Amino acid sequence: MKIKDIYDYLDTIAPFDSAAEWDNCGLSVGSLDSDVTKVIIALDVTDDVIDTAAREGAQLVITHHPLLFAPIAQIKTDSLVYKAVKSGVTFIAAHTNLDKASGGVNDCLAKKVGVSDLRQSGVDEFLKIGEIEPCTPQEFALKVKNALGGKVSFTDNNATIKTVALCSGGGGDLIDAAHLEGADAFLTGEAKHHELLYANLIHTDLFVAGHYETEVVVCEALCERLSKNFKDVEFVLYEGNAPVKYI
Amino acid sequence: MKIKDIYDYLDTIAPFDSAAEWDNCGLSVGSLDSDVTKVIIALDVTDDVIDTAAREGAQLVITHHPLLFAPIAQIKTDSLVYKAVKSGVTFIAAHTNLDKASGGVNDCLAKKVGVSDLRQSGVDEFLKIGEIEPCTPQEFALKVKNALGGKVSFTDNNATIKTVALCSGGGGDLIDAAHLEGADAFLTGEAKHHELLYANLIHTDLFVAGHYETEVVVCEALCERLSKNFKDVEFVLYEGNAPVKYI
Amino acid sequence: MKIKDIYDYLDTIAPFDSAAEWDNCGLSVGSLDSDVTKVIIALDVTDDVIDTAAREGAQLVITHHPLLFAPIAQIKTDSLVYKAVKSGVTFIAAHTNLDKASGGVNDCLAKKVGVSDLRQSGVDEFLKIGEIEPCTPQEFALKVKNALGGKVSFTDNNATIKTVALCSGGGGDLIDAAHLEGADAFLTGEAKHHELLYANLIHTDLFVAGHYETEVVVCEALCERLSKNFKDVEFVLYEGNAPVKYI
Amino acid sequence: MKIKDIYDYLDTIAPFDSAAEWDNCGLSVGSLDSDVTKVIIALDVTDDVIDTAAREGAQLVITHHPLLFAPIAQIKTDSLVYKAVKSGVTFIAAHTNLDKASGGVNDCLAKKVGVSDLRQSGVDEFLKIGEIEPCTPQEFALKVKNALGGKVSFTDNNATIKTVALCSGGGGDLIDAAHLEGADAFLTGEAKHHELLYANLIHTDLFVAGHYETEVVVCEALCERLSKNFKDVEFVLYEGNAPVKYI
Amino acid sequence: MKIKDIYDYLDTIAPFDSAAEWDNCGLSVGSLDSDVTKVIIALDVTDDVIDTAAREGAQLVITHHPLLFAPIAQIKTDSLVYKAVKSGVTFIAAHTNLDKASGGVNDCLAKKVGVSDLRQSGVDEFLKIGEIEPCTPQEFALKVKNALGGKVSFTDNNATIKTVALCSGGGGDLIDAAHLEGADAFLTGEAKHHELLYANLIHTDLFVAGHYETEVVVCEALCERLSKNFKDVEFVLYEGNAPVKYI
Amino acid sequence: MKIKDIYDYLDTIAPFDSAAEWDNCGLSVGSLDSDVTKVIIALDVTDDVIDTAAREGAQLVITHHPLLFAPIAQIKTDSLVYKAVKSGVTFIAAHTNLDKASGGVNDCLAKKVGVSDLRQSGVDEFLKIGEIEPCTPQEFALKVKNALGGKVSFTDNNATIKTVALCSGGGGDLIDAAHLEGADAFLTGEAKHHELLYANLIHTDLFVAGHYETEVVVCEALCERLSKNFKDVEFVLYEGNAPVKYI
Repeated sequence: MKIKDIYDYLDTIAPFDSAAEWDNCGLSVGSLDSDVTKVIIALDVTDDVIDTAAREGAQLVITHHPLLFAPIAQIKTDSLVYKAVKSGVTFIAAHTNLDKASGGVNDCLAKKVGVSDLRQSGVDEFLKIGEIEPCTPQEFALKVKNALGGKVSFTDNNATIKTVALCSGGGGDLIDAAHLEGADAFLTGEAKHHELLYANLIHTDLFVAGHYETEVVVCEALCERLSKNFKDVEFVLYEGNAPVKYI
Repeated sequence: MKIKDIYDYLDTIAPFDSAAEWDNCGLSVGSLDSDVTKVIIALDVTDDVIDTAAREGAQLVITHHPLLFAPIAQIKTDSLVYKAVKSGVTFIAAHTNLDKASGGVNDCLAKKVGVSDLRQSGVDEFLKIGEIEPCTPQEFALKVKNALGGKVSFTDNNATIKTVALCSGGGGDLIDAAHLEGADAFLTGEAKHHELLYANLIHTDLFVAGHYETEVVVCEALCERLSKNFKDVEFVLYEGNAPVKYI
Repeated sequence: MKIKDIYDYLDTIAPFDSAAEWDNCGLSVGSLDSDVTKVIIALDVTDDVIDTAAREGAQLVITHHPLLFAPIAQIKTDSLVYKAVKSGVTFIAAHTNLDKASGGVNDCLAKKVGVSDLRQSGVDEFLKIGEIEPCTPQEFALKVKNALGGKVSFTDNNATIKTVALCSGGGGDLIDAAHLEGADAFLTGEAKHHELLYANLIHTDLFVAGHYETEVVVCEALCERLSKNFKDVEFVLYEGNAPVKYI
Repeated sequence: MKIKDIYDYLDTIAPFDSAAEWDNCGLSVGSLDSDVTKVIIALDVTDDVIDTAAREGAQLVITHHPLLFAPIAQIKTDSLVYKAVKSGVTFIAAHTNLDKASGGVNDCLAKKVGVSDLRQSGVDEFLKIGEIEPCTPQEFALKVKNALGGKVSFTDNNATIKTVALCSGGGGDLIDAAHLEGADAFLTGEAKHHELLYANLIHTDLFVAGHYETEVVVCEALCERLSKNFKDVEFVLYEGNAPVKYI
Repeated sequence: MKIKDIYDYLDTIAPFDSAAEWDNCGLSVGSLDSDVTKVIIALDVTDDVIDTAAREGAQLVITHHPLLFAPIAQIKTDSLVYKAVKSGVTFIAAHTNLDKASGGVNDCLAKKVGVSDLRQSGVDEFLKIGEIEPCTPQEFALKVKNALGGKVSFTDNNATIKTVALCSGGGGDLIDAAHLEGADAFLTGEAKHHELLYANLIHTDLFVAGHYETEVVVCEALCERLSKNFKDVEFVLYEGNAPVKYI
Repeated sequence: MKIKDIYDYLDTIAPFDSAAEWDNCGLSVGSLDSDVTKVIIALDVTDDVIDTAAREGAQLVITHHPLLFAPIAQIKTDSLVYKAVKSGVTFIAAHTNLDKASGGVNDCLAKKVGVSDLRQSGVDEFLKIGEIEPCTPQEFALKVKNALGGKVSFTDNNATIKTVALCSGGGGDLIDAAHLEGADAFLTGEAKHHELLYANLIHTDLFVAGHYETEVVVCEALCERLSKNFKDVEFVLYEGNAPVKYI
């Protein structure tokens, strides 16, 4: 089996050319022509992920966030890129293409927090909308926290929530799109102060549940799909900690 | 007393032309030539802040964040700007000029969380650095939470913290500047996922304590200074809630 | 009747999305959801137009030029925008969309000065071409002045005029398009010195009859059309003076 | 005598490098190294100016407006540039450098219309301010018309005029600068509709007296200065008509 | 016969609107309406080409490179443009439109150096690919030198060459496109140092045979086609030297 | 000895911050904190240079051209960057800072071809001017070829050459600067066709002697200076071939 076979399969379920224009997904480091028998799947490339790949003898690491997010003009010994190249492992990212793919990050998030009847937004390609059992903001925040872990910040407009828009990761700037879609609430991973104020102004409750927590849910699902499709390759779900603690 | 007298005093303690180039602080709505006897001081212009100003008979609202953050091409009846104009009240913002001023937002934050010996960073104009009693990341997180309320997210590098860099509000992109200044920890209000990962990589602990919580501390201090300087004007500290709840 | 009904009708006869890209027509201030019984129609929003709307109890002002031509970052008490918001009246503009609409500004101008067989230019969307009874430049200038009032500046190539291109308002930069269309003369409201020189060079006579005078002709026509269509709303043609005197 | 001697003298009285950044003054066509005995001075390079230079045997034409206003990528037989090159004459322009020079266009205009005690504006380099005998707008308009010919358009704020700002040529966009300088009136050659409206709003009367009429006054003065300085060269003032007629 | 007839024929065999966006081909100086009986055909407009046209009594010069490559803002007596206008001759260029046309520069080059089975590249519009009898790099370099004259610089990867990509003129930046097309070698007129290094890295031999030498081959072919098509016009192939000597 | 010591010395003789704005010199790959006992000095980073460094046990490669000329967003196994990182060697470039430094590339080139009395141009920072024994263009071309190897292309204006401007590497666009400096000839490494034509037009002979040949002369000089300054480090001059052959 070649890495290119796995790359091509990813391209089928989440076409790389459907990624956002600013994105840099696909091959970051290495070669698609290498043989592969073992793959690590993680949200991010970190020190520990590279160490794990080396220790486990994996030839490929698949992450959601690209190792090379922006072009670089210097490669220092103490950088992640240097370590990645030295490891001899190949690194591939499925980022914004996977966010919106069917069965991708948004879909996994919706499933995890119990949002059903999911439909694609007509306003923004990274937004999806669905329904929950009617509840209060406080109840929905608790439900999200129980499902994802971490902590949840939210605005509370004292109204029942039924229709929920969602965007995994850093999607706070879609609060207006969520409002235009008629959502009672909008769940995302990161939001800025002025987006929270705006949510209060337009009475669309904004739930901020962590970039990591709203995205890491895709890794397990991806691991299962790849394992099912490539019987002769071992896919290992990286089990490291969240990058942040809460108090 | 004219509003211009208060404006000129603000210009003395936090010169408006020292604001960031992209900022839009100073007069947002109204007139510097109006008489003033009562002033509301708040972090943001919200529905409730305008209602409070009207109810209290204030002629001026001073906030940290500008009412008109970006230029607008339309003023709808249900917008904050419309409501602000209709209120007849004048609105002034002291934003990035107050962030870095002596006795400004950063200084108030440092005082509140117990960072002493504060000095200006040479790397970034919005960064200051100081010292705390040596403690663990967990202990510093608790200290910050007790001082500011809200919740604290943080990376934990298992090392003692002594030198602390800080930037109130949304300062996560200064993590590298904090590292260059030799800080053990960096306290700010908002940070993105990749900034948290980077903090882990470079072993500089990042403490994220809320945009609102790290900035609202300036309001009380500003209220006191203005009250002391303008005996004939009544300055009222707005006592509304934080825009967000935590679970 | 809601303002939105009138807005939608305007959108039918002069679609707002057909406006030039740099234009800012449509709703400037107020709300499309308000009830309306009385409307002022004028070329521009001026102090006196707002006073008239307030005095007459109108809920809507429709003008050709937008109140908010460019985005604004500050609203001072002595500005037109401040006064407009305070008035409680809604302000809508039909600008470049109305210039080129059938029955719009260009068509009204052509009718007023006796240019018939009007056709759309293929070179520029804001240019139309038609025919007059053959006459000298001096005669055509007099005809235009008699029809529009004000004064007329013109280049005189000593040749008979039969085919006339026209563009209401500030259209001097279309002199070359008029020439390419084979026009003997080009009538517009404003032209620059180098456009007049160029007109002399290419022997296409340029007639400059005033921005106000070549556009105000649309107001009466618009008033009539709206009155016919909305029987229960009173449409009042603003009768103020031209902004400029001539000597 | 070489053309360069005249060029260098112009550079002394109106330094070419003081021109506006977008300007293209100096040598347009020909050579500074040619001998010169006869020079035509005109406001613009026109067909008739080139014919006159050829007929008179002039080696140089000095104009206010540059022959090559913008860079060109094609030179057609029927263009002014083609004709200019074929004539063998050299063409030099003293444009925005002459506008603001001492004894330049603005100064000549002020003298012609009786504005005295002229001083340079601190707000804009192309604006000057002076004083007249107090009079009504109507009276000042008449005075300007009698001095310059052509026609005058003006806004009339019904107040006495004493302090007058002026900018020859197309200076309507300086109405705000004129207002900031405390002028009662602002005299220029060209203005747009919205500048006239703005003049009404801020109660600073705007007098528009023609681009040609407010600038051609410099030609005679320039002719005299050059004649005095270069006794062996004949300087001829071009006596052609204004490019435009009025009715 | 009018020059426009020849222009229109050129437009048929190498449509001017197929030129690269940055190109400035077509009419540079003169008029398409002039009569024509004699035409000079050359690669470039030089002093000697203009002298030749004048001496020969030609009314038209057709070159590959445009006389006005970029827009100009000044026309000095000692410039080529000045001389061209003074000559009274009309100048037309068929540049990037002719590069890629059927029977154009690339095709002529391929024929001259013996590359057959030429096909259009799918990667770049200015690249064509064909086949030669298998030979060594050294042998191909000699073949090119014998065919074109001048000198040849080349990288030598010690492998047999069979498939050859080519781009006349300055095409070194297409080395990657040539590689993607599977070429063993890439022949062009100019290349930069880093393109030669890159050619070594990817083992695609780069042959640099001179901008002039790889393009001048089109002149003879163009002369023949035009002579055949316009029997009443004399087309003269300019016989001047290459602009450069080699040692 | 640390690599940083050598880096700091280079910064003294050719300050990195004096490099052109678009340049990317300094550290490309590796770490300034590593120990160093052996250094390879070459013009470019190539496959063979990296192999040589590894074979020789060098810890540092210093080149003129940066390994990372432009930022990269992907690192493939077959790229030079990948190979460089894997080698464990550190790579530093002294590029445009070294071009213009005293004793830098331009100075070495001048010395090699016998241009004396070298002075810095006031027109362009990368141009220097000096004098040779008067000779013909043909003689100077031969002299350059004998000194540098490779081949020389040149324009020949049939005039004696005495003053010579020079710019190592790709400097053809400085032909006008050389002319302005009063040079009879201009020696550089690369020039484009239109620059050669222009050289003919302005009668300033242009000598093109190869990018590699005009720059590689600095390596030996640099090697000597470094060896003298760092007695305990071995500096090895890379002895590979030129990247290109001539025929």
